[in-house]
Amino acid sequence: MKYSSSLLEDAVLSLNALPSIGKKTALRLVLHLLKDDSGKVEDIVRSLKDLKQNLKTCSSCFNFSDNVICDICLSPERVKSTICVVESVRDVMAIEDTDQYSGLYHVLGGVISPLNGIGQEQLNIQALLSRISIDQIDEVILALSPTVDGDTTSYYISKNLEAMNVKISTIARGVSFGGELEYADEITLGRSILARTPYSINVD
Amino acid sequence: MKYSSSLLEDAVLSLNALPSIGKKTALRLVLHLLKDDSGKVEDIVRSLKDLKQNLKTCSSCFNFSDNVICDICLSPERVKSTICVVESVRDVMAIEDTDQYSGLYHVLGGVISPLNGIGQEQLNIQALLSRISIDQIDEVILALSPTVDGDTTSYYISKNLEAMNVKISTIARGVSFGGELEYADEITLGRSILARTPYSINVD
Repeated sequence: MKYSSSLLEDAVLSLNALPSIGKKTALRLVLHLLKDDSGKVEDIVRSLKDLKQNLKTCSSCFNFSDNVICDICLSPERVKSTICVVESVRDVMAIEDTDQYSGLYHVLGGVISPLNGIGQEQLNIQALLSRISIDQIDEVILALSPTVDGDTTSYYISKNLEAMNVKISTIARGVSFGGELEYADEITLGRSILARTPYSINVD
Repeated sequence: MKYSSSLLEDAVLSLNALPSIGKKTALRLVLHLLKDDSGKVEDIVRSLKDLKQNLKTCSSCFNFSDNVICDICLSPERVKSTICVVESVRDVMAIEDTDQYSGLYHVLGGVISPLNGIGQEQLNIQALLSRISIDQIDEVILALSPTVDGDTTSYYISKNLEAMNVKISTIARGVSFGGELEYADEITLGRSILARTPYSINVD
């Protein structure tokens, strides 16, 4: 693409460096921002700068936070004896959006992945283990991705928790609500038969 | 969506204000930027600030420019006697990408559109007319959108040029290269028959 201005080209290329933003989309966004009078550019510039400079990671659960300890860890309404172990901050947000969980979280920052050179020492696993041994934790819910790496990580954590008196669970796996059986993949469907649960009329 | 940090929420909402960037995409972009160590945030912040503060509009053709007069208008290699009239800066870029045009441009900034309250006085039409009367312009190419508003604008400009000794042309309309006839719409196909051109073996 030929740009009539190097300033325009710079702005397009800087947005083009983002995932899923191609050059044409970047150009469209930049031209939109140039037309805009409502301060969108200033908002983006200020909020990205603030974010990069001031965003903290909760020293307890490793969730993103404005302060040293995040709002979830500080909240008096949360059940402090349950920890849900997740890979990333996005998973915390996804579970929070369900309104079905009232315990605490622990963000690992990924899963053990020998192929990608990620061992347990790069993740927040040691911090999780010491949290469980120090705080009064009754239950650890392993909510990692249903992949080989996720399963490996779940296994590693559960092995390390064996000696401690703590209940370990994983989130339920099975066919999606609203999904049709014929479209479920074989492994999911097979496992959901093996892991069948007692039928209850009050299930919601 | 529930955000664990107001800084994170601010950044997501500022990107969410862009066209075609939903909240989930905005969150993905922000999390990508947080992980990034290669200075993408600084690039975006700097380039958008620079763009908003320093981008100029060429005082001759109204294309975006780093200087008072744009590179195309200044270039000694361009044919100064031909002006291609387009709606927007994107059209200039699209035509430049074809490498088939070596004249100058004139960006109108839109088309006459009574329904949207856009009259000729909001566009750079008067500047075009004075440019044509002052400079030695032989040909004006009208390259506006093939819409009712685009045709109205082309008509308005051509009417105003009647008195001047200047050739007026429009870009060719017809079926696309590589397109199949059966998929061309009726109006395009009908007009391309009416506007048939002499067959030439050397056509490229």
